[in-house]
Amino acid sequence: VPSAARFDGGVEWIHGDLSDRFVVRALVQSADYVFHLVSSSTPSTANLDPAGDVLENVIPTVHLLESCKSSAIKKLVFLSSGGTVYGIPSQVPIPETAPTNPISAHGIQKLALEKYFSLYHYLYGVDSVVLRVANPYGPMQVARKGQGVVAALISRALAGGPLEVWGSGDVVRDFIYIDDVIRAILQVGITNATDRLFNVGSGIGKCINDVVDDIETITRCGTLKRIWLAGRAVDVPINVLDIRRIQEATGWAPSVAWSEGLEKTISWMKNAAAKDVT
Amino acid sequence: VPSAARFDGGVEWIHGDLSDRFVVRALVQSADYVFHLVSSSTPSTANLDPAGDVLENVIPTVHLLESCKSSAIKKLVFLSSGGTVYGIPSQVPIPETAPTNPISAHGIQKLALEKYFSLYHYLYGVDSVVLRVANPYGPMQVARKGQGVVAALISRALAGGPLEVWGSGDVVRDFIYIDDVIRAILQVGITNATDRLFNVGSGIGKCINDVVDDIETITRCGTLKRIWLAGRAVDVPINVLDIRRIQEATGWAPSVAWSEGLEKTISWMKNAAAKDVT
Repeated sequence: VPSAARFDGGVEWIHGDLSDRFVVRALVQSADYVFHLVSSSTPSTANLDPAGDVLENVIPTVHLLESCKSSAIKKLVFLSSGGTVYGIPSQVPIPETAPTNPISAHGIQKLALEKYFSLYHYLYGVDSVVLRVANPYGPMQVARKGQGVVAALISRALAGGPLEVWGSGDVVRDFIYIDDVIRAILQVGITNATDRLFNVGSGIGKCINDVVDDIETITRCGTLKRIWLAGRAVDVPINVLDIRRIQEATGWAPSVAWSEGLEKTISWMKNAAAKDVT
Repeated sequence: VPSAARFDGGVEWIHGDLSDRFVVRALVQSADYVFHLVSSSTPSTANLDPAGDVLENVIPTVHLLESCKSSAIKKLVFLSSGGTVYGIPSQVPIPETAPTNPISAHGIQKLALEKYFSLYHYLYGVDSVVLRVANPYGPMQVARKGQGVVAALISRALAGGPLEVWGSGDVVRDFIYIDDVIRAILQVGITNATDRLFNVGSGIGKCINDVVDDIETITRCGTLKRIWLAGRAVDVPINVLDIRRIQEATGWAPSVAWSEGLEKTISWMKNAAAKDVT
């Protein structure tokens, strides 16, 4: 349960589970905008129980869409996974029109949900936008939840190492600072673009070894011990998103450079570590 | 419950539900080949309860795949829906590489399952083939189950009409005789083709009005009254499959022409009507 005290006033918190259809239905009825950011799985955990992943994510989200049919919401925004729905790309950067062949259950779950959002628009006019978000990083991303490699690596670096790298470290990812993701979410909420599916990333590829080097530099931890673990089956070798569609449709563009974002993240995590909230 | 008496000997029937994981697991353990032909929904029914459709079809099939991981099966064949996974096509005939944007929950469910079959091959080597079958018709397809427009129309024609046509009747479908579908299923069961996804159809488009005309001609029922109902949201305007991939990979080709297949179907249904099994 998140602590409401961490947030500014003016926000009404309702604690509940997405799979509680009645709570969700009641909330949707009184909402203008719905932002669906919840997932019970990550790329690495979903493969352990793909059926459970469907049960916990696909079914409750279809129920959410059912609720939206009979509501007056202006826009529904769903966060999909730009890092997993495409699978192993045949072109880089990857446009929204590229084939979608996920190599993880998480990616299949997200892809199926994208199709349901599209269906509910087609059949019932539920106005939605799907964002295929790359690898977000930044303050509030904590290491213990397995939400991202940047948080995990910074956390280990601040603890004096060692740094665990899956595979050879030449896996390439598209890291996007969290504030930029939030601006994209808000921007598509008010857009009237005809497209309903957008990549959200930096459009820039960065390999894990470079991420580790940059963290060492900015944390001034010196050179830390690196442990090379076996590559994970769920990890595609490269994922960099083509972000021209959202740029052209909404004017959104990433505004926080990697070095700046990484400094802010490290600074937040040092503070958080001092307060023991990571 | 089907009547075993209708079938030749040498077949062991086990009655059970796909959602019974333990029955399915036991069967898979003793099987060489698994053919998954079950669906609890049709294109028109799935939209009424998309979440139930996921619960009844996606989850049990993912459990089936889990069972196959630890089995010695040689091949798993899954029947997907060539008529719904593509949605409204941008090219006709539709190749396997075309975009997949279903406009029915049934199509999304099948598409998601296709991705899980691919995933289990990628991660665990479960050897599977997915067939995107067009509109099968032929003996044993009964009108009351809503499985196909051909059976429904013949049944009405033999009862003296009227014939119900959804929309203007210019919707185009790819009808494939059931014996040809069965040959395709058996053929891909023993193939070693590298492709794991094949369209199965006649490759020929036929509009519903022509189907009605042909049924009137062959049944010699004369001109029957036609009732034009509102078009259905789930119906794409045209669906004709490009079948070159399976032809090149396995040598399979449709062998029963439409007129011959329709005659056989009408003849079977007349007999069945006499015995009251439709």
